[in-house]
Amino acid sequence: MKMVLGAGLIALVVTLVGTRWLIGALARRHYGQFVRDDGPSTHSIKRGTPTMGGLVLIIACVVAYAGAHLVMWQRPSASALLVLGLFVATGLLGLADDWSKISHKRSLGLSARTKLAGQLLIGVTFSVLALRLPDGYHTTPASTAISFTRDIEALRLPVVLAVVWMTVLITGFSNAVNLTDGLDGLATGASTMVFAAFVLINIWQYGQWCERATTAGARCYVARNPYDLAVVAVALAAACFGFLWWNARPAGIFLGDTGSLALGAAMAGLAVVTRTELLLFLLGALFVVETASVIIQVGWFKASHGKRVFKMAPLHHHFELLGWAEETVVVRFWIICGLTIVVGFGIFYGEWVLGQ
Amino acid sequence: MKMVLGAGLIALVVTLVGTRWLIGALARRHYGQFVRDDGPSTHSIKRGTPTMGGLVLIIACVVAYAGAHLVMWQRPSASALLVLGLFVATGLLGLADDWSKISHKRSLGLSARTKLAGQLLIGVTFSVLALRLPDGYHTTPASTAISFTRDIEALRLPVVLAVVWMTVLITGFSNAVNLTDGLDGLATGASTMVFAAFVLINIWQYGQWCERATTAGARCYVARNPYDLAVVAVALAAACFGFLWWNARPAGIFLGDTGSLALGAAMAGLAVVTRTELLLFLLGALFVVETASVIIQVGWFKASHGKRVFKMAPLHHHFELLGWAEETVVVRFWIICGLTIVVGFGIFYGEWVLGQ
Repeated sequence: MKMVLGAGLIALVVTLVGTRWLIGALARRHYGQFVRDDGPSTHSIKRGTPTMGGLVLIIACVVAYAGAHLVMWQRPSASALLVLGLFVATGLLGLADDWSKISHKRSLGLSARTKLAGQLLIGVTFSVLALRLPDGYHTTPASTAISFTRDIEALRLPVVLAVVWMTVLITGFSNAVNLTDGLDGLATGASTMVFAAFVLINIWQYGQWCERATTAGARCYVARNPYDLAVVAVALAAACFGFLWWNARPAGIFLGDTGSLALGAAMAGLAVVTRTELLLFLLGALFVVETASVIIQVGWFKASHGKRVFKMAPLHHHFELLGWAEETVVVRFWIICGLTIVVGFGIFYGEWVLGQ
Repeated sequence: MKMVLGAGLIALVVTLVGTRWLIGALARRHYGQFVRDDGPSTHSIKRGTPTMGGLVLIIACVVAYAGAHLVMWQRPSASALLVLGLFVATGLLGLADDWSKISHKRSLGLSARTKLAGQLLIGVTFSVLALRLPDGYHTTPASTAISFTRDIEALRLPVVLAVVWMTVLITGFSNAVNLTDGLDGLATGASTMVFAAFVLINIWQYGQWCERATTAGARCYVARNPYDLAVVAVALAAACFGFLWWNARPAGIFLGDTGSLALGAAMAGLAVVTRTELLLFLLGALFVVETASVIIQVGWFKASHGKRVFKMAPLHHHFELLGWAEETVVVRFWIICGLTIVVGFGIFYGEWVLGQ
């Protein structure tokens, strides 16, 4: 457990200290967020809050992972490097977007097409690599089967379809966290909980791992490097938690696309390598519902020639316009996120217990 | 796990629905909180918010525990009934206090001496009963030893001193949560996390329990009814979580002494029967620090003839007066609470792993 605790501690300290530093550095250069014009009108006071906070998360996680491995003198693992690489790559894509917003002084950034192309490229690269790189037991980081609490053999796909499925999952969650990131602390707090759930999942998988003689029973988990993935997950959870210190309302800094795209991609990446892809729809149900609200709103608007289902999408703005205070929406959405995670982890654990 | 999930679900639903009902019922009768005159001046706008919200927590936990046992047709256990009784008794004491505030239209309620006498009486009754009632293995709910992650044999006390120790612990934590309950959602959110930690502790103890042949190894846990205590703990956690929905800023209702005294006593009661008394100082470090801030402030004020260490005690008001927004203090204090719980549970788990 030493590496897990160490990586968590490093990520926490780096974000607590580093975010404060970044807020100062960005504020001095007058790099504030340009709030989009179609948000609730009360949000226009948020003009000027620095963004690109995700930069600290990326640095914190890389430093935490590398630091823990240097101190304990352990080799990094393929699975962990892949998830970390996915996190950094989508973060850099988001950074390009945030940067273009700042330098052009507009709220839109990269064109939607450019951003999507970047996401798909990163997703495909991750998926293809994750299906290769077998360890000594022929276990690759990802599998071609769609997974729930473990791989579902009945849903084993041809390689090309498996790559498509993983890429869609990664791109979808990346954009889902991005959409959810509209109220102070909402996406950061929810992400903290999701990554904490993945820490538990990885530790549990490591405890019942097929690649250890003592635990290789009938119900053992096929996975590559679960312990090292717990190190990555704890770094992500702790980094989000530390960032929340500064990101809670009234936010001193926003995640920006740098943070939100990267966090969503990392969640999906962890789901792929821990073989819990469909479970992610429960653990990250908040992000799924927020995205669904946008799809429903836009779809119904077009189909009905101008009618709206929600007062505003994504869903958190709908409740704001119903008169809930911003902080009320945030805390209640956190509660919902916490509950779906409890249910999701309960199902994951229950599947193991009942199968005994 | 069915009873744990069932009790959690019942407690959650009862608080989500019941709190809304209570807010309406109290508001119609104009039973609002009279905010104390020595709080920050911005708090005077809180006059009128209904209090006694703890009433819902008490009903929810009793209904959840009884409901889960009726549906599964299981006998209640001594340990669980003791903790639940402690929770209800301190809740009723708090209710008397809240009620006297409302009926006398003043912020002070029962005299400090009456309240303390009630707390001590309840604490002694709980402690004496908990040292009796052995099960078939001669295990009583509480032990005479002071405990950290399990009983410390070197700190085994004479019965009278053990009763004093437990009574002080219960009274202390009861008042500590009461002191912490000064910002919207702060005590409720922190309590949710502490009780969630006790759910994990109880489930882990049940998994490594000395009273089951399959798990009675050298490192097994001596405890009475750990599974049934998990049911109580999950009811408490879920009730707090559901109450937080309405108690988050801007609060629609306050815990009142009904809630805060009861929650603190229940925490201490759980620590006694799970044999994790000193660990509670880490799990509930936030409450300990808040209380310490009051003691330091008052003590230094008297010793120095009028100087103050903090701008205002308890500690959360100090940070408010430093210019932090109320919601910032709440979220940051939650983060601190979450971190000390992670460390505390890590030590609890680590003690078991390293002892293997």
